[in-house]
Amino acid sequence: MLIIGEKLNSTREKVRKIIEERDVKSIQELVLRQVEAGAHLLDVNSSVALGDKEKNMEWLVKTVQEAAAIPLCIDSPNPEEIERGLAVHNGMTGKPFLNSLTAEKEKIEKLLPIIKRYQCAVVALVMDESGIPENVQTRIEIASKLISILTDSGIPLREIYIDPLVMPIGTNDQNGLMVLNTIRGVKELYPDVKTVIGLSNISYGLPERKLINQIFMVLAMSSGLDAAIIDPTDKGMMAMIKTTLTLLGKDSYCGEYLKAYREGKLTF
Amino acid sequence: MLIIGEKLNSTREKVRKIIEERDVKSIQELVLRQVEAGAHLLDVNSSVALGDKEKNMEWLVKTVQEAAAIPLCIDSPNPEEIERGLAVHNGMTGKPFLNSLTAEKEKIEKLLPIIKRYQCAVVALVMDESGIPENVQTRIEIASKLISILTDSGIPLREIYIDPLVMPIGTNDQNGLMVLNTIRGVKELYPDVKTVIGLSNISYGLPERKLINQIFMVLAMSSGLDAAIIDPTDKGMMAMIKTTLTLLGKDSYCGEYLKAYREGKLTF
Repeated sequence: MLIIGEKLNSTREKVRKIIEERDVKSIQELVLRQVEAGAHLLDVNSSVALGDKEKNMEWLVKTVQEAAAIPLCIDSPNPEEIERGLAVHNGMTGKPFLNSLTAEKEKIEKLLPIIKRYQCAVVALVMDESGIPENVQTRIEIASKLISILTDSGIPLREIYIDPLVMPIGTNDQNGLMVLNTIRGVKELYPDVKTVIGLSNISYGLPERKLINQIFMVLAMSSGLDAAIIDPTDKGMMAMIKTTLTLLGKDSYCGEYLKAYREGKLTF
Repeated sequence: MLIIGEKLNSTREKVRKIIEERDVKSIQELVLRQVEAGAHLLDVNSSVALGDKEKNMEWLVKTVQEAAAIPLCIDSPNPEEIERGLAVHNGMTGKPFLNSLTAEKEKIEKLLPIIKRYQCAVVALVMDESGIPENVQTRIEIASKLISILTDSGIPLREIYIDPLVMPIGTNDQNGLMVLNTIRGVKELYPDVKTVIGLSNISYGLPERKLINQIFMVLAMSSGLDAAIIDPTDKGMMAMIKTTLTLLGKDSYCGEYLKAYREGKLTF
């Protein structure tokens, strides 16, 4: 399970200010906390911060990678920002991710040349001009279209991360099941393609959000999820992920589970 | 999700003594706590208690059903005890369960006449003379054999509860996955047949057993589990079951989830 740390996102007020003020020390702290907690990759989004958008992204990518040798998931609605992030990304840490492509015509036109140039891993959302489909079949069709476009651009199947788009169950009680069935459907059609979700949207508007997020993570893993954009400093969530991997037979002799126990990582 | 309360089992020292001492008050308390916590059925097992085995079961069934109008899961390795339990079970509370049939020749010979006579629901374990199969395919074959025998005896598919037999992941790290795949396989072949598990064996010998049990419950529900023999007074477990049902799209407008929240049943 690939853990992508979600905390370096300028939609969070605190992070927006850190970027605007070029607060190196605070960035370092957010980086190290996530890496120590077990993140394999960090999502970086500077798009909401004031100032020169591309310079903000450049500063963020460089500052994060000076704090830790970890690959990044370059996250922005603006192709120019994404391109700048990829341009300054230190490839010695691993392959960068682009977050995110959709099946919208304009997105494809603007992002495909960048994807071809940098040959990065790609997070691809199952939505197009009509928005987010209200059924599994159409989501899988859009995933197929995106996979076809990306492989034609030289991206191998294993570096394509389909995001089935988690919407709140508070607005439609079938939203959780739709994501689980989309994950399962994509993995059946394309066993080598990866799946990824951003989790917290599932519980929007409901009480006890952590409980919902954690259980949904377990269910998504059971459906074949490969990666998640989450808060790795949430000890409960990380304990559940470790336990789920063990129960799904992916932990030889329960070694990782016992190691996590000895390190105090299963209590929360 | 059918919740079968596990606490009235004479393999627990406390319950054994209660049965031997005919302690009506303590039984009533154990019954009411489980019913109030949300049990739909109570498992009753008196087999380890000293004294006349059949009289013990008769007393237990009658005493429990005087405390609450709830159907029982008559649980014993001894066919005579099971028969006595079924004979005195109050059918006005609902249909009793027999726990358990296996594919062992002797079990079938002794239990089938009882099953035919009482037309009870049946918990059927996927094991035979060779023990518990170490692979999914053989478990499903034994399930098929048991289903065929039971339907020939007049038991409808919906009243057959296949138990895929949970073994500790501490002894074989594929034991969890084998149960999940057996549940999925049985439900694919026989959509009307039910599945049931006793949970706590999965975590035997490992630390943080509650965490493992809870996560395994979520995974089993995701694989199509219909019923579980658990401790319904475990608030964490019950909160996870409710949340899982909501996330699997089985809770219209999240109504049950919000009700559980208002009643303080989601915090633990």
